[in-house]
Amino acid sequence: MPNGTAADIERAGASARGDDDIYTAPRTSHNFDPPLERELRQSIEDLEGNAPMLARMARFHLGWIETNGEPTAYDVRQSVQGKRIRPHLAFLSCAAVGGEPVRAAPLAAAIELLHNFTLIHDDIQDRSPNRRHRATVWRIWGDAQAINAGDALFALAQRALLRTDPVHVPSETLIQLLDAFNRMTIEIVRGQVLDLEFEGRANVTPSDYLAMIGGKTAAIVRYAAWAGAIVGGASEATAQGLGEFGEALGLGFQLRDDVLGIWGSDDETGKDQTDDIRRRKKSLPILMLLDRVQGEEAERLRERYRSDAIDETGVAEIRRLLETHGIHSDATAQVAHYHRIATESLDQVFGGRPESESAALLQMVARLDARRS
Amino acid sequence: MPNGTAADIERAGASARGDDDIYTAPRTSHNFDPPLERELRQSIEDLEGNAPMLARMARFHLGWIETNGEPTAYDVRQSVQGKRIRPHLAFLSCAAVGGEPVRAAPLAAAIELLHNFTLIHDDIQDRSPNRRHRATVWRIWGDAQAINAGDALFALAQRALLRTDPVHVPSETLIQLLDAFNRMTIEIVRGQVLDLEFEGRANVTPSDYLAMIGGKTAAIVRYAAWAGAIVGGASEATAQGLGEFGEALGLGFQLRDDVLGIWGSDDETGKDQTDDIRRRKKSLPILMLLDRVQGEEAERLRERYRSDAIDETGVAEIRRLLETHGIHSDATAQVAHYHRIATESLDQVFGGRPESESAALLQMVARLDARRS
Repeated sequence: MPNGTAADIERAGASARGDDDIYTAPRTSHNFDPPLERELRQSIEDLEGNAPMLARMARFHLGWIETNGEPTAYDVRQSVQGKRIRPHLAFLSCAAVGGEPVRAAPLAAAIELLHNFTLIHDDIQDRSPNRRHRATVWRIWGDAQAINAGDALFALAQRALLRTDPVHVPSETLIQLLDAFNRMTIEIVRGQVLDLEFEGRANVTPSDYLAMIGGKTAAIVRYAAWAGAIVGGASEATAQGLGEFGEALGLGFQLRDDVLGIWGSDDETGKDQTDDIRRRKKSLPILMLLDRVQGEEAERLRERYRSDAIDETGVAEIRRLLETHGIHSDATAQVAHYHRIATESLDQVFGGRPESESAALLQMVARLDARRS
Repeated sequence: MPNGTAADIERAGASARGDDDIYTAPRTSHNFDPPLERELRQSIEDLEGNAPMLARMARFHLGWIETNGEPTAYDVRQSVQGKRIRPHLAFLSCAAVGGEPVRAAPLAAAIELLHNFTLIHDDIQDRSPNRRHRATVWRIWGDAQAINAGDALFALAQRALLRTDPVHVPSETLIQLLDAFNRMTIEIVRGQVLDLEFEGRANVTPSDYLAMIGGKTAAIVRYAAWAGAIVGGASEATAQGLGEFGEALGLGFQLRDDVLGIWGSDDETGKDQTDDIRRRKKSLPILMLLDRVQGEEAERLRERYRSDAIDETGVAEIRRLLETHGIHSDATAQVAHYHRIATESLDQVFGGRPESESAALLQMVARLDARRS
């Protein structure tokens, strides 16, 4: 492994939550971006034709162009496209089991397109005005056309996966990858159904929440790690191990994000420390608290979460309650729990001493945040 | 061919436009519904789990249950599920080239699920309050959850197609079917993008319109006929011929629908004759008219289509203009043109004397409406 890689990961990790993207892409001596870009470009070209608005929405959302069709500046593009941890995990998983990473390019593009399809639809559903410092697709082109943009990216994702090279991946295996891809999509949709339902419910439990993020956040990370291994030629057992790593990693990152949203310092998050409380975000620590408080305390807390906003007094009171009920250490223990599962899953696959650079990198990703939170 | 089949088709044809569904399912001695139902049920079962709302939205939209979860009455169900011409065409095409129809059941379910995914999203986009005499999914569960319901059906459609029996359809062929399925979906989305764009444009030409319905309406009919033949074991040339039949059939049915929307008698359409004019629907005859009128006449006509509603005086004037400019005969000629292409495509595939019942039925479908319009 080249010198400096570990430090690079640390640095990237420090700003992991600065953007909308909760993950951190590890750096390797491989550059996965050129093959991914090629696949993405080929995909978007499919949208050309008599309805130019369709390709324009996709290119805008991916950060390639501005609304007027002009190419974006380099830094805008980097910021909008995010850290691409999901496609990168597919490449890494493929490489870690001994496959030539480029084999995973169609898979990686499929994952990235699917992720972007869900983001476009999520933004409509959540009425999010901005994503990564730019207007969302629905805000520029309207809900109806944004629905179309998402639908088209979903179809393109399938087509990208279908371009997987049959020389390395037999057709029967590709069919298995496609079926799992669509099962995973249904899990994401199910997670989103729950997330929207939870907004109107007072009795969401921590375990409801874990089931929701299991679909909405972790399913695609699991798939990326599992499918990358399959494309790389791994046995089903090895791929399953990597899938478990991916799922635990996805859950761990999301919960770490929840913890940082309340206790993170400005340095770590780039946001006001109390943001998630003020925004009444029902993330894991709050759900744990709601689950524990009783009597009058419970009544007042629920009342605060029913109101339109939580003021400074409310934020201070909720912080005291979190402290009293020992939520910080329990939530942090949950994060550590998932990172431990992630690490153990990898240890089972690669043993204590991974031989490839990629396997070592995966282990570093798994361990990365357990220490910090 | 059993006696009475031709008459059955005629009868069904007479009410083709009574519902939102513009097609007519031909009757055969095969009953395609049981294998289709089995596949659809298996698909929807995939939605079970911790988000019961998801399966409920799908079952409601398909006409299986009421909003309270109770099973629908038989006639409600028949009305909501529509005539299923698209999946039936897949079965017929498979049978017409000598394949056992049941082989096409996963394909037929995929087509029906895809169609229903697009309907759920279309209803949101068009703000349609009702579909087939019931509330639309978005009106009951809201836009956000309706988007989820559509997304899930799209994923289920892919999974249904993936269940195609590998004994009859080699994996390489299935991959080809899947890729074409997603290309077809992109065509549908492109058609929907154009349809929504056209609402805000004054200068839509008849040829713009034909390009739009080519995607929105005809692409799936083309696919059903083409893919059914592939599943049935046909050569690519034969399947292409059936695909051309399907495309022309889809265009012909849509244009016939446009003609009936203005000149159809109540008997034929179950609607007020002048409905499409009063609703300011820019269907082919109106676009042909807008393309031909000039000067002051053009100005007044465009003004009427810019206003919120067209009154009785307006309707009468537009009828006079349609008459003066010979639009009825020209639009009818367009319908006949596509039905001729449909018939000729089949003649090329099967020759003058089709040997199978299914091939004969396809030819009757192709000829059916050419005579009437």
